[in-house]
Amino acid sequence: MTLAHDLAQDLAAIAAEMASRTDRGQPADYIPELAAIDAKQFGISVCLADGTQLSAGDSATPFSIQSISKVFGLAIALGRLGDQLWTRVRREPSGHAFNSILQLESEGGIPRNPFVNAGAIVTTDAALGHRPPKEYLAELIGFIRTSAGDEDIHIDRAVARSETETGHRNFALAHFLKAQGNLTNPPDLVLGAYFHQCAIAMTVEQLARAGRFLAGFQRLIAPERVRRINALMLTCGHYDGSGEFAFRVGLPGKSGVGGGILAVAPGRASIAVWSPGLNAQGNSLLGTEALEMLARRTGWSIFG
Amino acid sequence: MTLAHDLAQDLAAIAAEMASRTDRGQPADYIPELAAIDAKQFGISVCLADGTQLSAGDSATPFSIQSISKVFGLAIALGRLGDQLWTRVRREPSGHAFNSILQLESEGGIPRNPFVNAGAIVTTDAALGHRPPKEYLAELIGFIRTSAGDEDIHIDRAVARSETETGHRNFALAHFLKAQGNLTNPPDLVLGAYFHQCAIAMTVEQLARAGRFLAGFQRLIAPERVRRINALMLTCGHYDGSGEFAFRVGLPGKSGVGGGILAVAPGRASIAVWSPGLNAQGNSLLGTEALEMLARRTGWSIFG
Amino acid sequence: MTLAHDLAQDLAAIAAEMASRTDRGQPADYIPELAAIDAKQFGISVCLADGTQLSAGDSATPFSIQSISKVFGLAIALGRLGDQLWTRVRREPSGHAFNSILQLESEGGIPRNPFVNAGAIVTTDAALGHRPPKEYLAELIGFIRTSAGDEDIHIDRAVARSETETGHRNFALAHFLKAQGNLTNPPDLVLGAYFHQCAIAMTVEQLARAGRFLAGFQRLIAPERVRRINALMLTCGHYDGSGEFAFRVGLPGKSGVGGGILAVAPGRASIAVWSPGLNAQGNSLLGTEALEMLARRTGWSIFG
Amino acid sequence: MTLAHDLAQDLAAIAAEMASRTDRGQPADYIPELAAIDAKQFGISVCLADGTQLSAGDSATPFSIQSISKVFGLAIALGRLGDQLWTRVRREPSGHAFNSILQLESEGGIPRNPFVNAGAIVTTDAALGHRPPKEYLAELIGFIRTSAGDEDIHIDRAVARSETETGHRNFALAHFLKAQGNLTNPPDLVLGAYFHQCAIAMTVEQLARAGRFLAGFQRLIAPERVRRINALMLTCGHYDGSGEFAFRVGLPGKSGVGGGILAVAPGRASIAVWSPGLNAQGNSLLGTEALEMLARRTGWSIFG
Repeated sequence: MTLAHDLAQDLAAIAAEMASRTDRGQPADYIPELAAIDAKQFGISVCLADGTQLSAGDSATPFSIQSISKVFGLAIALGRLGDQLWTRVRREPSGHAFNSILQLESEGGIPRNPFVNAGAIVTTDAALGHRPPKEYLAELIGFIRTSAGDEDIHIDRAVARSETETGHRNFALAHFLKAQGNLTNPPDLVLGAYFHQCAIAMTVEQLARAGRFLAGFQRLIAPERVRRINALMLTCGHYDGSGEFAFRVGLPGKSGVGGGILAVAPGRASIAVWSPGLNAQGNSLLGTEALEMLARRTGWSIFG
Repeated sequence: MTLAHDLAQDLAAIAAEMASRTDRGQPADYIPELAAIDAKQFGISVCLADGTQLSAGDSATPFSIQSISKVFGLAIALGRLGDQLWTRVRREPSGHAFNSILQLESEGGIPRNPFVNAGAIVTTDAALGHRPPKEYLAELIGFIRTSAGDEDIHIDRAVARSETETGHRNFALAHFLKAQGNLTNPPDLVLGAYFHQCAIAMTVEQLARAGRFLAGFQRLIAPERVRRINALMLTCGHYDGSGEFAFRVGLPGKSGVGGGILAVAPGRASIAVWSPGLNAQGNSLLGTEALEMLARRTGWSIFG
Repeated sequence: MTLAHDLAQDLAAIAAEMASRTDRGQPADYIPELAAIDAKQFGISVCLADGTQLSAGDSATPFSIQSISKVFGLAIALGRLGDQLWTRVRREPSGHAFNSILQLESEGGIPRNPFVNAGAIVTTDAALGHRPPKEYLAELIGFIRTSAGDEDIHIDRAVARSETETGHRNFALAHFLKAQGNLTNPPDLVLGAYFHQCAIAMTVEQLARAGRFLAGFQRLIAPERVRRINALMLTCGHYDGSGEFAFRVGLPGKSGVGGGILAVAPGRASIAVWSPGLNAQGNSLLGTEALEMLARRTGWSIFG
Repeated sequence: MTLAHDLAQDLAAIAAEMASRTDRGQPADYIPELAAIDAKQFGISVCLADGTQLSAGDSATPFSIQSISKVFGLAIALGRLGDQLWTRVRREPSGHAFNSILQLESEGGIPRNPFVNAGAIVTTDAALGHRPPKEYLAELIGFIRTSAGDEDIHIDRAVARSETETGHRNFALAHFLKAQGNLTNPPDLVLGAYFHQCAIAMTVEQLARAGRFLAGFQRLIAPERVRRINALMLTCGHYDGSGEFAFRVGLPGKSGVGGGILAVAPGRASIAVWSPGLNAQGNSLLGTEALEMLARRTGWSIFG
């Protein structure tokens, strides 16, 4: 077991290593707000079972959590619908890019899992129910603030607006799901909620704290449900790079195109990392490497 | 932590529950040797860190381990080639059926992972190298006997012969891989080795012991490599039902169409289960349910 | 060569035969206006080179021409852009259903041909240019009225409205094309024009006359362009049933889900047929059979 | 109507034009026999209804007809099985490369048409029946010799041998068809016949004569069947370039990777052309252009 003292050294070493890297990947550039971000940034933060939190690098800079929000959205949808959600979305890795529309067609409008875009849109629709999006977003932000123990977490409206203007592929997915009978609300309404959810901004310090319920340090949802969300993060949390992430890092994790990753060592740590440059699968390049280093140094892999 | 005493009760309860089930799935019927097997059988065996082994049900009946052999074949291929193997096969869940040829075409002849049939054929080709199949098979059987601590483990020649006669889809895969330049040896030679490897017969008692190196109780290969094989078992070990297995059971596992499953709780247990009837994804129906019960009772899930 | 006199007998025999059929296929039911149509109707009309027009059955009942409008839209788009259109849409049969989104993804947003929905949406976008949809629709209706020599041809606004309300899959296609950079105008604008174009109502008498420029009896566009449109109708005019239609009927033709088919025997005849019930590929069941009978009786097949 | 005199000028002009071209495409290089061929060659020959035959260029040089043989094989299979053949192979363009295995998987082992490789293998299996391959090949060669009126047509054994040695993808297709229950004979037997059939060598003069039954100048099979074969050649004869060929040339045609094309203007001409360099779809680059020139000059397009 790693002591907090050693962990501080680990995090410093990782931050130093990442600062020295020249190949940092490419930040997402489909909206101006993400394209403008300084790719040189890197931050990491870890919460332990004893309540300790250790951080290094740009750990207090807010970034757009993007798809990481799908984890919290899933928790809320499961809270409202329970296992009924699984009639509308499956629990299998996709074998395709995160925003693929192809699989939807061949598999009858049931998305492969709640973390590919189509699955997250269905999950948002389910979490919405018949409420106005505003109400759902209030519940979501409330859940995240509670889990992070921090009221200062907000939606970046400019990001949400940009997503709405350029999200043609997500509009395609939502209309396709509607055509296939797997969307209760109108596509525009669901996407409005979805784009705002993705535009939540957090620091790695906030995000690591918000992940404590997944590590078992906080009881916000039933332990059985936590285990299942962790399993989904492991098998599907990095899109078509999930197998690779499991192979190299060995921890459940969920990435976002903003460059953030939330990872969980059950019973041991909740970890958030952020670096804007992405790899070919759309996951943070340095974030993944930092987690690989951390898992190797701490022995936190769930695989032995 | 579960005591060995409670575990005996757990296994007895699981075996009793499985004996009472009427929906037992359908045994594989593509070769007479598998089709003829009595679907009512069920066996389970668990090896713990302290050396204890507990079993219940038909735990001493040999069955065809089929694709479970891919785990041992992978260990040998990695021993020979190390990370070079990963230039020929990837580490991602497939999103398709175990014997799909489709993905090979769209992804240039590099199979998605070593556990889909195409990937296992490439892995066998790599493990073969320039040796005669007989030599590779001797090494493989030797490895399995050593890990199981039991010399009485053999290839069922009748099963191997039947596979050869009916394995048209595997011949298609092998010729396709050859056409795409990802097979060093002639297709027939590789498939000869592959079909014999799949035809190894073991009891759940033998199989649970043979999995101890994956649980960390035996050091046959480097711990880093063990972690990676476990990660692959978790993300890809149940074909296109891997996500579901991770979600429900929460343990790395590898299934075979003979109805066996080898599962690993790292640091805690090596588990083998067998029941011939399969579910829609080609994994043992009762075997999966037994493991789900066991994981719930023992808290062995790697996800918290 | 068939005399007009014999042709009258042929049409009467065909209409009588079709009236006796009990298996008439299923009318499209995705909008109330199409679902409500009496499936027992059948009409056929033929224009010959000498100016004669012969008809039988419900030849004066207007129906929704739907995808048949794509032929006229293509003529207008080619008139505006010439061969530049072919940088945005290809000329190959699709091998998939008419409204498939799958191929778009694997082929980079360039639809296979102007007659699958995605291709027709791109063609409409091209024909629109920077004009308001109203202007494009006026040109289109004008072209059809001129070719039919009949001013009494109109858009059925109720059909257009219903299409707009239920056309989620077309919205998905349009947004997807936009995301892939193959749509100049906003998706909603293009679809507005597209849905109105599809909602044009005509009788088989009007439609047969409107097709005379494709048979070479009228010179509205260059002969070279006519040949090419006919070629596209032959290879792609019946979606994933185009090969079958060519095999059985042997004439270039374009079908619509309203149950109409416009077919061309170059130099010999322009033929329109209508019967609301569709076959599995979404083409008029009796319309296809009527054309097969007609081609056999007249020897009009272009294949010998 | 073109006079034979003008046609001679047309052919000379076409041969001259083709001789001047520098971009000649790339000859097939998967077997040494095809790779070694001088890409500068070009030959064309035309048979007219009145019995005239006119040729230009390298019209007396034999080349490997490859897939053009599928037309003759289809005629024989239809002769033996009639419409029963269509329960095993469809009549639709494929939308995929000629040797794609992908569609087979998603469409249950029924190839799209008799001219993609999978469909030709099934057709060969059907034409074989329970005869030894030798007998089928004797019938096939006999049919071709009769249609060409020339006994000096042979199988190039070296080509057949090379195909057998390198045809892994065809072996994959055949084994896959066997696995899906759509092959009566063993894969190796069918492929033996198939590779020999593809290795028939002919000159364009012989080939143009052999195509006269498709133009209606010779009655070797029923006219109805001729029309249908022509329809299949139009929609499927150039693999995934069939739409393009119909669009540009406007004649039923069948290409082979040896660089030959047999085209038919029903009632008017049987045309053979040859130039070894291929375009991206695997069809003769200059052969296609020569046919486009010829169709434009003669007005032989079937589309008006």
